[in-house]
Amino acid sequence: MIEQPLRQGERIDELGRGGMKIIQSSSAPCFSIDAVLLARFVPLKAGQRVVDLGSGTGIIPLLLLARERSLRVSGLELMPEMAELSRRSVALNGLEAHIEILQGDIREAAALLGKATADLVVANPPYYAAGRGRESADLLRAAARSERFCPLPLLFSQAAALLKPLGRFALIHRAERLAELITLGRDHGLHGERLRLVQPRAQEPANLLLLEFCKGGRRQLQIPPPLCVYGEGREYSVEMAAIYAGGEGRA
Amino acid sequence: MIEQPLRQGERIDELGRGGMKIIQSSSAPCFSIDAVLLARFVPLKAGQRVVDLGSGTGIIPLLLLARERSLRVSGLELMPEMAELSRRSVALNGLEAHIEILQGDIREAAALLGKATADLVVANPPYYAAGRGRESADLLRAAARSERFCPLPLLFSQAAALLKPLGRFALIHRAERLAELITLGRDHGLHGERLRLVQPRAQEPANLLLLEFCKGGRRQLQIPPPLCVYGEGREYSVEMAAIYAGGEGRA
Repeated sequence: MIEQPLRQGERIDELGRGGMKIIQSSSAPCFSIDAVLLARFVPLKAGQRVVDLGSGTGIIPLLLLARERSLRVSGLELMPEMAELSRRSVALNGLEAHIEILQGDIREAAALLGKATADLVVANPPYYAAGRGRESADLLRAAARSERFCPLPLLFSQAAALLKPLGRFALIHRAERLAELITLGRDHGLHGERLRLVQPRAQEPANLLLLEFCKGGRRQLQIPPPLCVYGEGREYSVEMAAIYAGGEGRA
Repeated sequence: MIEQPLRQGERIDELGRGGMKIIQSSSAPCFSIDAVLLARFVPLKAGQRVVDLGSGTGIIPLLLLARERSLRVSGLELMPEMAELSRRSVALNGLEAHIEILQGDIREAAALLGKATADLVVANPPYYAAGRGRESADLLRAAARSERFCPLPLLFSQAAALLKPLGRFALIHRAERLAELITLGRDHGLHGERLRLVQPRAQEPANLLLLEFCKGGRRQLQIPPPLCVYGEGREYSVEMAAIYAGGEGRA
């Protein structure tokens, strides 16, 4: 593990998990709370093969490794700059043996990584349909936000192709997209087994959801209580603070 | 309004809403909290035409009239004994001009009541797939519990046929059936616009859901915070107590 020089606009952020660090750049999208929630939500078992579709800064592979050191995680990232940046974060943490970052388009995912080879596929995809929401003029930010770089049906078809039988696909998305996500799952043989809604506060509607599918699964859908990000005021809720701290509590 | 003599095993229960009463029988299914939740959940406007598919004791038509006196509600009930019992409850409250109870099979609903004539369709259907859950030997209770008397696809197709364009279909069901309900809605042109999960307590998973569809709707799905039935102990939560009391608060 050799400390590499940072480039202009870059900084190293501590992840508060056994010294784990990530390189982020002021000229590229940074990771958000959504990635932290997803990395905590997914079920992990020792030695699993995991694929992160659209791995961006590499935050999800890093946080998954912080939870379970025996994983092998492949991150697929469209933007060469992000793939390069995240590879340096992997090296900074000495995790080259556990995390590989591939640069490529999501439509090539199963071809690049192998059909039916993954135990778990995760995705924190762009949230906005092409032409909806704010479209960033900045290409890196646009790719992180707009579905035209990662259409939802393509995400589901590639996740389904990557997964072994009974493998799991977990994603975070906007709560209002629930019906579409469930329908797409059904269309691709992915059975919704766990739904966790995320509310800003206890009295506010859900704005995000975490959804876990099982390829060929048949278990009944579980819907645990919603996760509230904030308490009464501007402070994080007890659960959210524990998630940021890297605890292995509920999510 | 003439007070009628009760039959053996029957009693009159007060609904606590301006003197409204219901006749129930110890030899027939009684109404449950689920009907009370659904009757509070649905949006109502003056003068609307409403259909209750599987009206049982008549509890939902009565509770809807308690909220909005100008509705015209048709209850369709398969079991002749339940239809007869509920007609007497309607008469007991002097609501014959606002509530009609028809005896018939749900597959005849649109034929009996007219296609595209309803502003709102409600249903508190049997919760258990044929052969799953407890099957009651008692025919009346079996009809209230088992989907073989009211298959979900049939419920959705009849609701869609009954509704005017932009009419609403609201139902209560088990939370684990969410994916199926959303998929059936999509298949029948019913767009999910509001989902409220029901949890026994704040820290427990959802066991029921309230779902409102709009025929041909396009609005984003709203997911308000879950409704908790109980507080910390065995007492009802503040919101649940208000719903039982007939208040017009949130549901």
